[in-house]
Amino acid sequence: MERNIILYIAMTFDGFIADSNDGLSFLDPYNEYLEVQTSINNLMLEVDTLLMGRKTYDIVNQMSDRWAYPNHMTYVFTSRDEKDKENIEFTSEPIEPFVTQLKNMSGKDIWLVGGGRLIQPFIEKNLIDEYRITIIPKMLGKGIKLFHDQMNMLSLKYERTDYFKDLVMLTYSKIL
Amino acid sequence: MERNIILYIAMTFDGFIADSNDGLSFLDPYNEYLEVQTSINNLMLEVDTLLMGRKTYDIVNQMSDRWAYPNHMTYVFTSRDEKDKENIEFTSEPIEPFVTQLKNMSGKDIWLVGGGRLIQPFIEKNLIDEYRITIIPKMLGKGIKLFHDQMNMLSLKYERTDYFKDLVMLTYSKIL
Repeated sequence: MERNIILYIAMTFDGFIADSNDGLSFLDPYNEYLEVQTSINNLMLEVDTLLMGRKTYDIVNQMSDRWAYPNHMTYVFTSRDEKDKENIEFTSEPIEPFVTQLKNMSGKDIWLVGGGRLIQPFIEKNLIDEYRITIIPKMLGKGIKLFHDQMNMLSLKYERTDYFKDLVMLTYSKIL
Repeated sequence: MERNIILYIAMTFDGFIADSNDGLSFLDPYNEYLEVQTSINNLMLEVDTLLMGRKTYDIVNQMSDRWAYPNHMTYVFTSRDEKDKENIEFTSEPIEPFVTQLKNMSGKDIWLVGGGRLIQPFIEKNLIDEYRITIIPKMLGKGIKLFHDQMNMLSLKYERTDYFKDLVMLTYSKIL
């Protein structure tokens, strides 16, 4: 069975995944929910690989002294040339062949972490197998949108809804 | 108690309420769901007044020989001068004072039908008391978005989730 690419991310009711300065402070109150922490812990058991853009890597890196995902393989997509670290590989390869190769390797599922600039080509090329979008009961009004205008028109399969207090996580899968 | 303005609308997973030609054909399979029809029937019992833009009025008008909402009062916002019909009033008044006046009159709740151009100022001026958004398991890629960049940043209160087969209706209310 092929490994799935899972987009697991929080989005405001009006469609934003970050504020205009790439900030995520609007998520702070929700990150403390036990239900959210449990959900992330369960995700971390499901996946063994993380995909993120360079900016997201920097944000995660600055959050604490110790790298947050030492037991997972992380691939960081960047145009810059950078020395790999333990379980962190920097790549400037084109996304689609890279991901196809990754999916053909054996392993657990793959978490597409973000941010917006990395997610966009994944949506456009229909590379996401499962969308798990947690709806934050806020409107930001402006910032980084999850969805941009693109050429793809596609149907998804509704899978389930999960609740974390006043948050709703909607899960849809790709129709093969 | 004041009458509530309810935005009750369907939106694709990627945030569109109509295709690029104002078309709603992507909703056709779902309009046949018994659960959807029941939900609309219940809404029609909750409200006695409908608000819509001119384009939406034309679309509703062309759907059948007989006006779809004969027992409700419908206000159509338009810049053109038009003769009122039975239970249909055309208005070119500015939205905010018109709605304030309407809310101060006694009556049932008010359904903000659409379309996108009418909804936008309602969101910007924080005039919507309850959002009931049904998520369609499709991505359109382009079309008329429900949410546009705007100045308002606000928190909403999560109310409930309703299910119509593979559709999820999320309800949020304004925090007063």
